[in-house]
Amino acid sequence: MRAVIRRGPRLICEEIADPVPGPGQVLVKSLACGICGSDLHALHHADQLAALAARAGATGFMDPARDTVFGHEFCAEVLDHGPGTAGSLKAGTRVVSMPMSFGPAGMDLIGYSNALPGGFAERLLLTEALLLPVPNGLADEHAALTEPLAVGLHAVEQADLAAAGAALVVGCGPVGLAVIACLKARGFGPVVAADFSPARRRAAEVLGADLVLDPREKSPHDAWSGFGVPGNLAERGLALMMGQVPKRAVIFECVGVPGILQALFDGAPPAAQIVVVGVCMESDRIEPALAINKQLDLRFVFGYTPEEFGRALHLLAEGLVPATPFVTGTVGLDGTAAAFEALRRPDDHIKIIVRPHAP
Amino acid sequence: MRAVIRRGPRLICEEIADPVPGPGQVLVKSLACGICGSDLHALHHADQLAALAARAGATGFMDPARDTVFGHEFCAEVLDHGPGTAGSLKAGTRVVSMPMSFGPAGMDLIGYSNALPGGFAERLLLTEALLLPVPNGLADEHAALTEPLAVGLHAVEQADLAAAGAALVVGCGPVGLAVIACLKARGFGPVVAADFSPARRRAAEVLGADLVLDPREKSPHDAWSGFGVPGNLAERGLALMMGQVPKRAVIFECVGVPGILQALFDGAPPAAQIVVVGVCMESDRIEPALAINKQLDLRFVFGYTPEEFGRALHLLAEGLVPATPFVTGTVGLDGTAAAFEALRRPDDHIKIIVRPHAP
Repeated sequence: MRAVIRRGPRLICEEIADPVPGPGQVLVKSLACGICGSDLHALHHADQLAALAARAGATGFMDPARDTVFGHEFCAEVLDHGPGTAGSLKAGTRVVSMPMSFGPAGMDLIGYSNALPGGFAERLLLTEALLLPVPNGLADEHAALTEPLAVGLHAVEQADLAAAGAALVVGCGPVGLAVIACLKARGFGPVVAADFSPARRRAAEVLGADLVLDPREKSPHDAWSGFGVPGNLAERGLALMMGQVPKRAVIFECVGVPGILQALFDGAPPAAQIVVVGVCMESDRIEPALAINKQLDLRFVFGYTPEEFGRALHLLAEGLVPATPFVTGTVGLDGTAAAFEALRRPDDHIKIIVRPHAP
Repeated sequence: MRAVIRRGPRLICEEIADPVPGPGQVLVKSLACGICGSDLHALHHADQLAALAARAGATGFMDPARDTVFGHEFCAEVLDHGPGTAGSLKAGTRVVSMPMSFGPAGMDLIGYSNALPGGFAERLLLTEALLLPVPNGLADEHAALTEPLAVGLHAVEQADLAAAGAALVVGCGPVGLAVIACLKARGFGPVVAADFSPARRRAAEVLGADLVLDPREKSPHDAWSGFGVPGNLAERGLALMMGQVPKRAVIFECVGVPGILQALFDGAPPAAQIVVVGVCMESDRIEPALAINKQLDLRFVFGYTPEEFGRALHLLAEGLVPATPFVTGTVGLDGTAAAFEALRRPDDHIKIIVRPHAP
């Protein structure tokens, strides 16, 4: 079958062996698979990611010296069942799955595995127990948004929204937009969105952000007191002394570059909760004493639970999260390498979907 | 009256004007007042602290160019009442108070104020509404521990102990010991305590820590899996996949030096909650991606609520927290400057109490 292979820091489209489903596995046809920011990073810095995974005690991450087929945000169609499967989802059923596989050799991360191909291939092998059928005729490329939406949903679930007077989403790439969509899907507001890119600000608006701004023109931290969140320690202390329970700020950091955490320490109001979703791969500098003075709560989040993954699919299928603003392009396998390049310019695209069987 | 005055980076014992109680104020005699690590820092780095307070939007912090009488961990005796007070606590009543004062000119932080003396003086002025009588004949120098114990209690209250399988307290100075004491007072365990100093490790043991270790000899992170806390992502992922709710680690960072946060990022098990109580005044370097991979929760805490302050007093008065291990020395006003010097060597002392009326 054809696949886009990562070999060193290059993406090459060529033939690889057809996958054969083993025990508990289902052979599926990859219909649509999103390109993730992590894929862009893993193309050039796979060694760094592998070292990080090892330090965190994770297993299943690829050996960067060997070939890998990326693609972990997929929607697929059931083709065939391996031995020992129940076969409850018939051939032709469209499915999504958490991008992991459990076999006799342990766990593999689909999309970052040397043993199993990811979604940038014509076919892949999934674990039957993890398959979720795509409901309501949700389009392939929209069902493929389940995985990135689950990342945003998990971040929102980690926030203490009951105590929050307003939310700020810093960075409106796919993850920031997923956070905005999930906040609005559960009726939370006001949501302030900040991004340098006009295209991404427009998408934030379409997804329901209540206030969208360009941080070069206006500090997102000027808005807090208008939303009843005390903007500094003196204001908050006064409210506490009056017996009030002042509302807190919740800030979703969806950028992931050095310096952004310290900028949030500087700008955030006291008692803010900062949910860190953006993955900063470089070493970063912070001033802990400022975070202590403001009593900031810094929650680093990653991935999602199986329940959140399923819920993300239903948010899309029931139209509670509009999928259209996320998808700004589709390509075939031949166009995947160029799409990786295009995604390095944040003004051009939000999410590009690879359709391995596109003509 | 006599007082220890901070003038520039020096402590000088000399006469200052007798304080006269204004509206709502009570004149008290300072009976015992602890020296805090923040006092040591403020003696030499007051400019840095003032700048930090300003950036956090705090009010009431001293102008470092002017004289200040330190001392915010005090037990005092009521002498006289100013105009507009209820006078419900008669002269001779021993009291403690949160170290702040509210007057027409705004809020003052007692112990870091140019306008009001702190506890390293013979007398001070307190706000009547904040006074708490000392119950059960609790000794002066033990009642003076209310403030630092409240800091530890607040840190413990910020932790999600219901989900925690074990607690690690890094650093057994006064704050770390207060955390240990408050954890044990509410029946939590196991509590692991780590410190380089044998004297501090002994105090941790006396206060009920279940496992006390020297981090030069043994990593405190080796203990987690023995307490049912998955030690790495693979172990935790497996537990989650088996439908278990794995216990989390809660780590109290009570040291406050550069590098310790990153050391905890490296050592902590996944999903750990790190409550940062130690105040690191320097800029620090972290790897956010590691914290994200492990889904760490970093909660910076500071101060306490009025309710926690009152509860800390009662924990001491009811003997639920043994006070004796905290106090390793007492001095008069003349010995205060030397006591500041002695406290820079962590092996010699835990808490030194100043008794302004000692002979």
